[in-house]
Amino acid sequence: MAVYTDVSDDDLAAFLADYDLGEVQSLRGIAEGVENSNFLLHTTKGYYFLTLYEKRVDERDLPFFLGLLEHLAARGLNCPQPIRNRQGAALGRLSGRAAAIVTFLEGMWPRKPTPAHCARVGEALAQLHEAGAGFALTRANALAIDAWPRLFSTAGARADALQPGLCAFIEEELAFLNAAWPRDLPSGVIHADLFPDNVLFLGPRLSGLIDFYFACDDFYAYDLAICLNAWCFEYDHAFNITKGAALIDNYRRRRALSRREMEALPVLARGAAMRFMLTRLVDWLNRPEGALVKPKDPLEYFRKLRFHQRVESLADYGVTS
Amino acid sequence: MAVYTDVSDDDLAAFLADYDLGEVQSLRGIAEGVENSNFLLHTTKGYYFLTLYEKRVDERDLPFFLGLLEHLAARGLNCPQPIRNRQGAALGRLSGRAAAIVTFLEGMWPRKPTPAHCARVGEALAQLHEAGAGFALTRANALAIDAWPRLFSTAGARADALQPGLCAFIEEELAFLNAAWPRDLPSGVIHADLFPDNVLFLGPRLSGLIDFYFACDDFYAYDLAICLNAWCFEYDHAFNITKGAALIDNYRRRRALSRREMEALPVLARGAAMRFMLTRLVDWLNRPEGALVKPKDPLEYFRKLRFHQRVESLADYGVTS
Repeated sequence: MAVYTDVSDDDLAAFLADYDLGEVQSLRGIAEGVENSNFLLHTTKGYYFLTLYEKRVDERDLPFFLGLLEHLAARGLNCPQPIRNRQGAALGRLSGRAAAIVTFLEGMWPRKPTPAHCARVGEALAQLHEAGAGFALTRANALAIDAWPRLFSTAGARADALQPGLCAFIEEELAFLNAAWPRDLPSGVIHADLFPDNVLFLGPRLSGLIDFYFACDDFYAYDLAICLNAWCFEYDHAFNITKGAALIDNYRRRRALSRREMEALPVLARGAAMRFMLTRLVDWLNRPEGALVKPKDPLEYFRKLRFHQRVESLADYGVTS
Repeated sequence: MAVYTDVSDDDLAAFLADYDLGEVQSLRGIAEGVENSNFLLHTTKGYYFLTLYEKRVDERDLPFFLGLLEHLAARGLNCPQPIRNRQGAALGRLSGRAAAIVTFLEGMWPRKPTPAHCARVGEALAQLHEAGAGFALTRANALAIDAWPRLFSTAGARADALQPGLCAFIEEELAFLNAAWPRDLPSGVIHADLFPDNVLFLGPRLSGLIDFYFACDDFYAYDLAICLNAWCFEYDHAFNITKGAALIDNYRRRRALSRREMEALPVLARGAAMRFMLTRLVDWLNRPEGALVKPKDPLEYFRKLRFHQRVESLADYGVTS
């Protein structure tokens, strides 16, 4: 929940003078996102989403993120679409920050995902991978497998304070992943963070994908593995094969997965679980005393990783063919 | 900035089934208010403001707050208007909290108030005092003069850590206020917290007053004194008599101030400064280490109080007649 930079009425009016969006009606800070300051902007032309990029975002990445949204929206994906100003720029400056206006998407994210939600997410993920093809810019995955040892060295020594033995567990798993990680699967633009709070639904219909600030180039099947972790486990950490089947089958209906991609899923899912466990571990161990935002539990991803370690065949994910 | 309680899509749909507001289109947590969880709710009927009341609000006060908004809106004041459900109730329960939906007001609060803003606030405050007459419910001011010694005892001993001598200064001032406080000025419903962030403007027009959760019964002139402190000082803590004149003159154009009310203004302004200095002092001294929300500076109100102590006549506030 975040508004780090306040926007004055005068500054906003000056900023909007460059856009064909009419007059400001209201601006309300949105309690979403931990990286940037987000606002719902109402003008006489409609409702928009205004983001001020804070320090944790590298401004050199912004042309990739904003260009990607334009590229995807032009190919029919429901995602926020940047609004260009009169100079044709999607990126401007407001209150001392890089800032962009994008379209506002309706919908609510599902707090209790069902197999039907997972089916729509599988389709949309495949659509995203197809639509991303041909995008001119690239962005390396800053949280790919080669970044994990560094994350571990930041937090690892204290991991045992969270759970005895966790440190050795991670070391062993990192060694396995390093040896087993596939090297040349089909790749392109992935979302890399398609959790339920980044997928909006209006009733049964998926109305949009949001928050592309981890998007990067990596294996398509790794994106699917992230979704397996994010969508198909129950609150008691049990994997739900009905959800797994709904996610994977509906992905494959839109974009075929090669045999090598399918066979790599368990390793990719272990890697995806490792990536989120490590970043949560860093956030957990660096949490300020008394902070309002409670960090997410790293051990949720430890339990998911343990599940993937025990997977014997793709049938354990609900895949039947 | 606050969303303390999350609202699931299922819970929201069940809650809204009781209202004639159509289908949910979106719900976004709003980074405003430190007491409650606030959301911007979009339905097929329009935009609304949804509040879940958290622990710090006494539920027994909610009929007063919601009833007051209805009373004021019915008398033409631009303020949020509660939406009643099919059972005729303005108050319901959602995600384990008391909850209410009110109309959404357009506008932005002025970050740099001008004399023109102060003039509109003076008018609106007088309009609020007039419109509140005849409201059936009453609510004692929980932060009135008799509550200040208790606030001081919570924070006072450590006040010198903020500024040497502050403790003795407050003790002396509390003794003065206790002796000099007027006992029988015209009174009724006051807003009691009409700071710039609670007053919305669309261009030069005041579009609404919001956040009535400190509203109570007290002297009307005390509400004006709170506004003198909140609106008429510059960032360097100098009092701006042009703003003071704009606020007071435009208040009086709508509601006459008696000679006794006018003469009491300096004492009331000292009391208003004391009230905000003390609550800020408590918040300051109880702030959690590393918290995201920076508490407001109590010494801002120390300096305002010092100004009022030196006031020799109402001309020092810009009043000429």
